[in-house]
Amino acid sequence: METIESQVDRFFNPRNVAIIGASRKPGKIGHIIVEQMVSAKFPGRLYLINPKAAKQGIHIMGIKTYASVKDPHGKIDLAIIVVPAKIVPLVMKECVEKRVPNAIVVSGGFKESGPEGVALEEQMMEVARKGKIRILGPNCLGTFSPKNHIDTLFVPERTTPRPGPGRIAFLTQSGSVGGAVLAFAHNEGIGISKFASFGNAVDMDEGDLIDYLEDDKDTAVTGLYLESVSRGRKFIDIARRASKNKPFIVIKAGRSEAGTRAVSSHTGSLAGTDRIYDAAFEAGGIIRVKTIGEFFDVSLALAFQPPMKGNRVAVVTSGGGFGIMTLDALADYEMEAPELSPKLQKQLHQKLPYYYGVKNPVDLTGSATAEQFSFAINTLLKSKEIDGIITIPLFMTPLLDAEQVTKAIIEASNTRKKPILVVTVPANEEIRQRLHRMRLEGVPAYELPLFGARAMAGLAKYGEILRRPTA
Amino acid sequence: METIESQVDRFFNPRNVAIIGASRKPGKIGHIIVEQMVSAKFPGRLYLINPKAAKQGIHIMGIKTYASVKDPHGKIDLAIIVVPAKIVPLVMKECVEKRVPNAIVVSGGFKESGPEGVALEEQMMEVARKGKIRILGPNCLGTFSPKNHIDTLFVPERTTPRPGPGRIAFLTQSGSVGGAVLAFAHNEGIGISKFASFGNAVDMDEGDLIDYLEDDKDTAVTGLYLESVSRGRKFIDIARRASKNKPFIVIKAGRSEAGTRAVSSHTGSLAGTDRIYDAAFEAGGIIRVKTIGEFFDVSLALAFQPPMKGNRVAVVTSGGGFGIMTLDALADYEMEAPELSPKLQKQLHQKLPYYYGVKNPVDLTGSATAEQFSFAINTLLKSKEIDGIITIPLFMTPLLDAEQVTKAIIEASNTRKKPILVVTVPANEEIRQRLHRMRLEGVPAYELPLFGARAMAGLAKYGEILRRPTA
Repeated sequence: METIESQVDRFFNPRNVAIIGASRKPGKIGHIIVEQMVSAKFPGRLYLINPKAAKQGIHIMGIKTYASVKDPHGKIDLAIIVVPAKIVPLVMKECVEKRVPNAIVVSGGFKESGPEGVALEEQMMEVARKGKIRILGPNCLGTFSPKNHIDTLFVPERTTPRPGPGRIAFLTQSGSVGGAVLAFAHNEGIGISKFASFGNAVDMDEGDLIDYLEDDKDTAVTGLYLESVSRGRKFIDIARRASKNKPFIVIKAGRSEAGTRAVSSHTGSLAGTDRIYDAAFEAGGIIRVKTIGEFFDVSLALAFQPPMKGNRVAVVTSGGGFGIMTLDALADYEMEAPELSPKLQKQLHQKLPYYYGVKNPVDLTGSATAEQFSFAINTLLKSKEIDGIITIPLFMTPLLDAEQVTKAIIEASNTRKKPILVVTVPANEEIRQRLHRMRLEGVPAYELPLFGARAMAGLAKYGEILRRPTA
Repeated sequence: METIESQVDRFFNPRNVAIIGASRKPGKIGHIIVEQMVSAKFPGRLYLINPKAAKQGIHIMGIKTYASVKDPHGKIDLAIIVVPAKIVPLVMKECVEKRVPNAIVVSGGFKESGPEGVALEEQMMEVARKGKIRILGPNCLGTFSPKNHIDTLFVPERTTPRPGPGRIAFLTQSGSVGGAVLAFAHNEGIGISKFASFGNAVDMDEGDLIDYLEDDKDTAVTGLYLESVSRGRKFIDIARRASKNKPFIVIKAGRSEAGTRAVSSHTGSLAGTDRIYDAAFEAGGIIRVKTIGEFFDVSLALAFQPPMKGNRVAVVTSGGGFGIMTLDALADYEMEAPELSPKLQKQLHQKLPYYYGVKNPVDLTGSATAEQFSFAINTLLKSKEIDGIITIPLFMTPLLDAEQVTKAIIEASNTRKKPILVVTVPANEEIRQRLHRMRLEGVPAYELPLFGARAMAGLAKYGEILRRPTA
């Protein structure tokens, strides 16, 4: 018998795909999906289903069209369905007859749109269950994986640019939040391993997807945007196991009273009070973040740096003000920035001028050199007094050799002894590119003290989760 | 007798300037300042003081050099001093003899660097007091005003790009934070009216500068970065008066215990506990923010939108998930997003489809049109149930006419009845430019729900400050 993993894998890695409802008209959803699959360089066969086009022998983007999913001779392992909701049960029946094992139902007009939609959703599921088809959706964007060359998203690349391959997976209940996450990742130069928008989650839910990603070799960190959880017990059980294996980060909207009320209106499901979610996430070893920005800050750190063994942070800076703001931000996230011991201070002053402050932050001032950055960071790496380092090289200082400092930080980070994060001011394009390059080389680099501080807090939280006794 | 205002004004708007310590060598601080004054198109005379160059008859950037500030025939109303600290008292004496009324002392090596520096600073001040010279600095960047074509900053434009003219003024104790603020403003397309870095504030302090900016017609909002306040009573008295006239926003670093400790090391002054600052800022009608990003979010809103008369916000969105996240973020900033009354909901449903949620958020869904955005916003503008609107048009939705929606929002905002802020996802360059354009047209637009929420909270806070009885 086939494993659940391989069933889920076909959503991300199908051999041959049918697009049911492929359209000739640019701008239509059924056309954008064809474009995106072509643009993603999907390596398998692409069968386009459109009865009218097939009758007239019309090709779409040079690809042959068929009247029904039953018509092609070859095997199809994933159907992407974009026809109106009313026809979906019928189309699903044809998929059963063709023995298509997986279907992404992109179409909306189901549970989310009222009583008639609820009935249609049940009808569709009855057919699917009998025919043993696994369904992602309905009312969703489907899947995206740059490494696997699949892109079923009906938001065009022109408006929603796609990120390159990377180590972070993202699952989302909301399509528009999903699109924003992909654009954000692209613009920040952050890669994505696998992305799935699961919409109404009538069959495949967040739990199934997390379960699958737990064993996915391409994924180092799993993220999830949620408004409500349908099967709470299952979700927490899966999360507790998965989070011991790789970090699992959740953005749960509806944190406030007003937000909870809005969730009920939006999804039609009972949102539950936020405190219950907080407790459940804590029990499940889930790291909760508030925003998309915070998600990426924490994910980047977890994807590339070791978790913290405690919560003591040292700051090495070339700007005094930024050092202080970073200490403030660390305190906001309940991290400690202890005053270094006299012994450690003395050690630092052996190679640093007497007028440099070395209590924490270690303030290398505007006269900082690459050697001093390297010396301070490596001295702190060896010390037992601290568990992680945030370093703040202000690359816009005219005297600082940016390239040398970058190399020194990457080298220190490669020892993998303790996490090292960088905070800098992306004053110009050159610095912004340097920041992206550091990210590519495994050193998470952030644009504001706040971002670095919350990323460090994520590393501390995951360290705490890993130290928990296994149940 | 000359007013204090016109004394201060010369730091931002001098007729003729002497740069004492102008250097021939590119990369040197004394050279960068010459470059920047030229690049800023300073319209007055520029006298470069460099004894060695003068002796050899050498020009710097085509400008004549003099051996002493006493040598030029013309009147000089501002001296920019970049010579080593030890020579500064001597140079200051020459300025007195030349009757130069204002001096920016860029040089470091004074109070901030130990006992010897303290003595030098006192020596310099003695000369200045006797000669009635007003001093900005020492250990500072000086001033920048694009409208007045002055730029005394020794950080080159290549690494620290300068913003264009605008309505926000910024004062800073820290030079590196100041440079970051300018770069941030430039990159976000935000304009600056006047900028001053006052360093050790041996004479001109934050209070004097705020006092001056209170009456500055080009400035709508004043910002300040502080690590410590030297003359607390004076500062609060000035702030209380100034804040009734225009909003006054402070980033005070050293909020945390660790941060406070670091401030003492960095500035050599007693930082005081943060609670005292909090109370003093509250008494002074000062809006306190945590970060540079928050400062600009709040400033943009205050520079262009009316303050709120209460704290009730309505959200009009084309993405359900973003509506919920915005409600959550508003709650984080103690703002209310009340459920709209049945009467108001009915009014909204008169022109909006029955399946659109209108409780708050008003969720126009992925089918949103420009007319619907306009109708919903204008209906809410007229309602007495809410004090401000955040609208979230997701411009990446293929069906939305971005240009029409932008026009509708700008038009509604021009009524100036209630504040309107925009949140959108800057998925691509086109949307990012649209966002900057909205900012230019007076509609503050933000990249994340959190940013819009904290900006709205700033408008509510300033409304509360304005409603306070005048002492």
